[in-house]
Amino acid sequence: MLIVRSVGPKQTFNFELSTLNGKTPFAVNIELINTGSELMLGRVLNTHQQWIGRQLADLGYVVTHQVSVPDAGSDVQQAVREALSRADLVLATGGLGPTSDDITRDLVAELLGKKLREDAVALANVESFFAIRKRPMPAQTRVQALVPEGAIVLQNRHGTAPGLAIEVNPNPFRNESKASWLILLPGPPRELQPMFSEQVIPLILERFPRAGVFVSRTLKTTGLGESVVQESIAAPLKQLTDAGLEIGYCARTGEVDLRLAARGAGAEKIVLEAEQIVRQLIGRHIFGENDDQLEAVIVRLLMERRETLALAESCTGGYIANRITNVPGASAVLLAGLVTYSNDAKQMFLGVRGETLASHGAVSEPVAREMAEGARQKTGAHFAIAVTGIAGPAGGTPDKPVGTVFIALATDRHTLVLNALNRYDRETFKYVTSQQALELLRRTLLNQI
Amino acid sequence: MLIVRSVGPKQTFNFELSTLNGKTPFAVNIELINTGSELMLGRVLNTHQQWIGRQLADLGYVVTHQVSVPDAGSDVQQAVREALSRADLVLATGGLGPTSDDITRDLVAELLGKKLREDAVALANVESFFAIRKRPMPAQTRVQALVPEGAIVLQNRHGTAPGLAIEVNPNPFRNESKASWLILLPGPPRELQPMFSEQVIPLILERFPRAGVFVSRTLKTTGLGESVVQESIAAPLKQLTDAGLEIGYCARTGEVDLRLAARGAGAEKIVLEAEQIVRQLIGRHIFGENDDQLEAVIVRLLMERRETLALAESCTGGYIANRITNVPGASAVLLAGLVTYSNDAKQMFLGVRGETLASHGAVSEPVAREMAEGARQKTGAHFAIAVTGIAGPAGGTPDKPVGTVFIALATDRHTLVLNALNRYDRETFKYVTSQQALELLRRTLLNQI
Repeated sequence: MLIVRSVGPKQTFNFELSTLNGKTPFAVNIELINTGSELMLGRVLNTHQQWIGRQLADLGYVVTHQVSVPDAGSDVQQAVREALSRADLVLATGGLGPTSDDITRDLVAELLGKKLREDAVALANVESFFAIRKRPMPAQTRVQALVPEGAIVLQNRHGTAPGLAIEVNPNPFRNESKASWLILLPGPPRELQPMFSEQVIPLILERFPRAGVFVSRTLKTTGLGESVVQESIAAPLKQLTDAGLEIGYCARTGEVDLRLAARGAGAEKIVLEAEQIVRQLIGRHIFGENDDQLEAVIVRLLMERRETLALAESCTGGYIANRITNVPGASAVLLAGLVTYSNDAKQMFLGVRGETLASHGAVSEPVAREMAEGARQKTGAHFAIAVTGIAGPAGGTPDKPVGTVFIALATDRHTLVLNALNRYDRETFKYVTSQQALELLRRTLLNQI
Repeated sequence: MLIVRSVGPKQTFNFELSTLNGKTPFAVNIELINTGSELMLGRVLNTHQQWIGRQLADLGYVVTHQVSVPDAGSDVQQAVREALSRADLVLATGGLGPTSDDITRDLVAELLGKKLREDAVALANVESFFAIRKRPMPAQTRVQALVPEGAIVLQNRHGTAPGLAIEVNPNPFRNESKASWLILLPGPPRELQPMFSEQVIPLILERFPRAGVFVSRTLKTTGLGESVVQESIAAPLKQLTDAGLEIGYCARTGEVDLRLAARGAGAEKIVLEAEQIVRQLIGRHIFGENDDQLEAVIVRLLMERRETLALAESCTGGYIANRITNVPGASAVLLAGLVTYSNDAKQMFLGVRGETLASHGAVSEPVAREMAEGARQKTGAHFAIAVTGIAGPAGGTPDKPVGTVFIALATDRHTLVLNALNRYDRETFKYVTSQQALELLRRTLLNQI
């Protein structure tokens, strides 16, 4: 039987500060500027900070300073000036579009005393963007083809505003006019992210080569709390940490990421040995690496085995189905998902027996079992997961408090039922419960129950 | 028939910059400092920035500058020093806990040249926190009771680290030593948020009184692009904007928020008149106010009418069911949600006819219609929504490209089918499609089709 430990909702991260202060064998000072009134007014989350920070950290670079300012002339110019006075590389997001509040391009050109000229390639990209969509090109979008003299144009495959990479050399804002790079990126994530991965990362690797090797590996675990992970591995890894291994823990609700990193000669060997030790100790709980997501791991495992899945969800209300169907190709794996909130629906679509519901209640081990077996039998899927519980805030009883959940997995051999108590707000409850259900399936597929 | 315009994924916000620069009748310069290595490494999202920014903006205050720094001594002290040199109010989050990387308290005391003394109330709170949980109090947690001389202690109802409000007067870092306030807040959201709402907001309102009234109202729309909203209302509101009305637009994928605000005498009247004009012009598209979510509006409407809903989802894969069941009390409304990915499932659970699938294909108007009518008939729900389409990235054809979707709504009177082309990545496709489906139901419930 799988024992499920609930992970608290607190998010924590411990990391060698030496890395954060850039005191590394290849100290590069990287600063991030996010422009946009919507950030200051709290209308949107700053997802760029997390995404860019993560991309760089996984390569061994660290953002040492991040600032958000409104897209007002004085604020943007002051932020760029201050960043250029400190950093080797300044990344700025937003304000490159065609509207009146997209002013970063002009402000930077003015600050650096560079003229704007129309770039033919950038213009062609704007024109083709509208041509492909059979829409007339609005006059004001032409401004996006304007580029400061000497800037490298970063093509935008998903929008009209190109990115710009400018070598500020000499850099009048910095001691001894030491050169810096300034890279301007468009605000929309679906435009920024491919541009960053395909064009900015290679530029950074070329202009700021890493002295020696940097090896980083993130192992993703579920079912263990951060402190448990830490206690299980810290001592056994002591020798390697003394030899330069950096260990980072990131605990989210229902998931703990473990980051193993090392630099310079022998880094590869250190990280490899560390991973082997960790896998020996808590391998069962490691569901993936780096950016793997549990739902994607499940879909991949089932595709490899040409096996199928059915879902019967009560308290998770379709959240598990939603996670599975976020994975491209899920249609080859998921036959059906049944969100049976009412007792009638449980009987009609899953064949749960009325007397089972009457004698044990909808939130019970026998009902979870019948839901899973019913879903499997009706769809002919190889595996069926069923979930029934009390998400809250209302509906709890003394013997079945809010957070009570029964998770069943029906296979051709047997039906497993897992009972957990997930005391969280409604949405966290759904997430943690879906993690436990998907992990139960993953362990079963790998015979690691 | 409802016409659905897709809103692009670009997130934009236009706002009177005068407000953002603090040049308001009660100009208060507010800066936010977020400390934490996890932020710099991109391990977590900076939710504090959005939450605090939003709370303040809704009261008429604006954060003019936000910065994230690692929790390393030099960085934190430099950030606080720079913020105090500019701002009337500095808010800093994180680093107040008991562990070795919780250093903000000491660094600030050192920077301000204040001694730390043990605060009896703060200590009692730490002690009772462990007493209630029948756990011994770890020695190092006692440090959280240390408070800089003269600081106001902000009680922490959900944790052990108190917040601290310090009047820096005189402020050695600022021109003419003009006084500033420095408020330190604990990092965990469930500790920070109640503390901010219950203790910090009243303090801000008292120390930085707003000259006269501030009235703000956000109207939430869907189905119109930002530019369309802007064109429809800008001119008719001209007179009111001249009289001091501030209009803010925030466009997310599938949703545009419209913020109407005014200050001083007559603010109430101006915002009220503006809302009336806006409702006359685009009222059909306004689904809620302030923090309303479309799924919550749907559940409320159905509960009021004691009516029920069934869902039949193919390409949205349970996402609509998930949104509905995120709303407490949804169980009174949602009878069942059927995620019928395979054709077999569409026939078995919804009674879609084989010949319909064969002659029109799974992604077609007739199949959407039969899915909705089947779901309604099988569950006995008053309303049934069905969705079938091509989420992509694969599966598109010349006549049915990726993004093609048919949304059907079956009622006791008729079945409406809506055809849209939502060209987005997979997850955005699911979101936009769910917005269109829920809006179709909302309009039907209000007879606004």
